[in-house]
Parts: sequence; structure tokens; C-alpha cells
Amino acid sequence: MPNPLGPSIFITGANRGLGLAFVKELVKQEQVTLIFAACRNPDQADALNALAKKHPAIQVLKMDVSNDSEIAGAVKLVKDKLGDRGLYVLFNNAAILTETGAEYIKPDRKILEQHMSINLVSPIMVTDAFLSLLRKESSADKPSLVVNISSDNGSIQDAMTMGTAWGNIAYGITKAGLNMYTRYLGSGEKYNNIVAVSVHPGWLRTDMGTPDAPDSVEHGAEAVIETLSKLSIKDNGRYINNRGRDMRF
Amino acid sequence: MPNPLGPSIFITGANRGLGLAFVKELVKQEQVTLIFAACRNPDQADALNALAKKHPAIQVLKMDVSNDSEIAGAVKLVKDKLGDRGLYVLFNNAAILTETGAEYIKPDRKILEQHMSINLVSPIMVTDAFLSLLRKESSADKPSLVVNISSDNGSIQDAMTMGTAWGNIAYGITKAGLNMYTRYLGSGEKYNNIVAVSVHPGWLRTDMGTPDAPDSVEHGAEAVIETLSKLSIKDNGRYINNRGRDMRF
Repeated sequence: MPNPLGPSIFITGANRGLGLAFVKELVKQEQVTLIFAACRNPDQADALNALAKKHPAIQVLKMDVSNDSEIAGAVKLVKDKLGDRGLYVLFNNAAILTETGAEYIKPDRKILEQHMSINLVSPIMVTDAFLSLLRKESSADKPSLVVNISSDNGSIQDAMTMGTAWGNIAYGITKAGLNMYTRYLGSGEKYNNIVAVSVHPGWLRTDMGTPDAPDSVEHGAEAVIETLSKLSIKDNGRYINNRGRDMRF
Repeated sequence: MPNPLGPSIFITGANRGLGLAFVKELVKQEQVTLIFAACRNPDQADALNALAKKHPAIQVLKMDVSNDSEIAGAVKLVKDKLGDRGLYVLFNNAAILTETGAEYIKPDRKILEQHMSINLVSPIMVTDAFLSLLRKESSADKPSLVVNISSDNGSIQDAMTMGTAWGNIAYGITKAGLNMYTRYLGSGEKYNNIVAVSVHPGWLRTDMGTPDAPDSVEHGAEAVIETLSKLSIKDNGRYINNRGRDMRF
């Protein structure tokens, strides 16, 4: 079966952490010829810009996932670049996790709503905006992929043991909601040969994961990419870890 | 074990549908002496007002769950009424489900965000506002209850089969998120003898449930109240149907 990971890929939140690690890993894949690396402020994305200078496959572009006109602008740019071709993979990677304001005691409504908007509403809007490009060349043998970056914190079954220690409850709530969106998207789009999956990338040493995390972001990204390369239409709607094992919803 | 359902109860969205049916069922319970029936527009809540005229236990009050100053006003009113006593039960019942604007294809960001705000952020804000009153007299024998009204549409495991037929994906996403919140709240507040549960009330003939539903709202409310009356601290964090059976997360 052909590797479903290519040749054109769009990724949000690509300027740092896991998003940047994905870009670094994806440029190594022979079949990947175009990587659209979106971030809020390309002017400040030094590491990503440096990488793009070395690898002409990387197109850095400005897109705040919560801004619908920037999403529309990004779709137009991608269409122009792709010409007659479709888009093969969309990574919904951008997310927020604040240190304060999202505890279940004395929560801040604005902070909670910001998590819902960025982590949950925006992936729905972004995916819809790219849906016709994702459908364009997908087939049962070579499905297009929507990769929703989730977390083990999105496991409702495991929340009683993992839960409140984190402080921020909005992150886990939005990841559980994102897992639900993956199921809806997968059940609707399997007929168009699009595979939607939720992926827990592992607990990784990023700004979000903290330096206490057991694994490097490079290893996490590498494992995720390898796992994604093995997916087919029957994997639609799954919630998996970076090795492709099922997580508990 | 004493019936945990009393004597004081607060319920949101009490003017119609399941909320109104809960009020009707609760006034029949001997131990329930105060029912705070909150709704957005008491002036237009004819059925609820008529019921309150017959039953002095019912206090109709204005509270839009998305309005933090109205929440604060309701807490003050409840405190004044309760005097030295605590609140025993909070029903987070108010929710929205729009007919259009929340499909996964061509969604409306404002409509999606409205679902997140009303169905997910507001129960978190409302519960926090009442938390000190809920903790006030709760004990292991007589825990206070937070009842989050969920739905079988909040089951992520079952979403691939039930899913997209509904059209509105935001409702199920917010109910899955609400189930997660129930888990966080329950794991944090069990030490304060508060029980948090998510309840699927059944598919009922309401405006939201449509006339096609197999069961009446009265039967649904009656079954839920009977099930809640049997809960104890060990039930914390469960997602149950109106007969107390576990639902699949």
C-alpha cells in the first residue's frame, strides 16, 4: 500500500514545539514535496524560517486558526501552489494550555472560552476550509488524512486518576471534544476516502509538555509520522498513541 | 441511607422541556422544600410561573447561564433564602442545540462557539459559583449532588454509528466535554462529599427531542429523579442513563 503521507501537507502551529518537530521530520520523507507550515506570527518564527531556507519544500505562511479570513487566505495560497492537485494531509496541531484561569475552582470565563475556540472550534473551521482540497485526489488506496493532535488528557475514562492534578481542566475537556469531532468527521468523510484520527503524541519535552516529560519532541514526532504512514481507511475515527495503539476514550 | 435529593435544589433552564418536568417531579418529593427554578426570561415562563403559584416551594428566578453577573445575583438570592443552610442539588440542565450552523460541513464559528459557551463553559462557571453552598452541609452519608444533564449523543465510543445523522455536531461534542468536566469535578470534590454525575435523560418528546422521541418528558424526569435519589459518594464521576445504568464514554 502506498504511504498515505504525501506529497502535500498542511500543519498549524508549526513554529515551535511538536509542530516544528513535525516539519523537521516531514522534510526527511522522500515523497513529501510541499509542507505548508502555518503559524500566527511568521516574523517571529526564527527556527521555522531557518529550516525553510534550507528546504524549499517548506512554505511558511501566516494563519491564526481563530481568524476565518486568515484561514480563507491560507486556503487560497495553498490552492495556487497545488494547481490541479489536492492536499493529502492536514495536521490540526495548534492548541493552547494556560497555566492559570482554567482550574475548575474560580475559572475565568474568557480563558475557558479561549480554549474552546482555539482547541475545539478552530480545528472544525480549518478542516472544513480544506475539505474540498482533501477530497480532491483521495482514494481508498491512498486516502487523505486529517490528523487531530489530541492528548492522553483527553481520555474521559482515565480522567478520574489523571485529572485535577493538572489544574487546567479546559485542555482535557477540549481534547475529549476533539476526539468526538474526529469520530464525526471520520464517519462522514470515510465515503470520500478521508481518514480522520486523533493522536496522543506522547508526553514530550516542549513548552507545553514541560522539561519533566520523559521523551524528546523529536522522538515523539518521528513515532507519530511512522504511525501515520501505516494508516488506511479502516483506521478512521481512532484515538491512538504515537505507536498506533488504541487509547481509551 | 437518606435520600440525597433535598431539601434545596437549584435548576437551570427550568422554564420548559426537561427542566420544567424536573420541577414538576421535584415538587412531589416530600423532603424537597426549596426549588430554585432559573430561566433566562421569567416574564415569558408561563407554565413555570403557573406551577410556582400553586407550589410556594418553587422560586422562579432570572439567570442566563452565560451571564456571570446574573449568576452572581442568583447566588446572592439563594444565599439569602437559605440563611445558614447549604444547597443540596445543582442541576446543570440549560443547553442549546440549533438546527443549522453546527454541521461539520460549512459550520458557522459563532454558532459553534455559542454551543461551547452555553453547554460547556457555563456549567463550569455556574457550578463554581454555587460550590461553597454545595459544600456547606454535605457529608459522606448525605452528599451534595451536581447533576450535569448530558445525552447519549455525548458518547464518543458510539459516535461513529449515531453521529452525523443529527447534523449538529456541536451538541455531541459539548456533551462529551461535559462528561469530562463531570469527571474532573467529581475527582476533585469527592473529598468534600460532593457527587458529580452526567445523566442521559433518555430520548424524550421535548422541543429538543422532537415529537419522534419514544418516551414522554414526564417519564424521563421521573426516572432520573428516582435514579438520583439512590446515588452515593461511590457514584462520583459516572455517566449514567435515567435508570442508573452506565453509558459508554
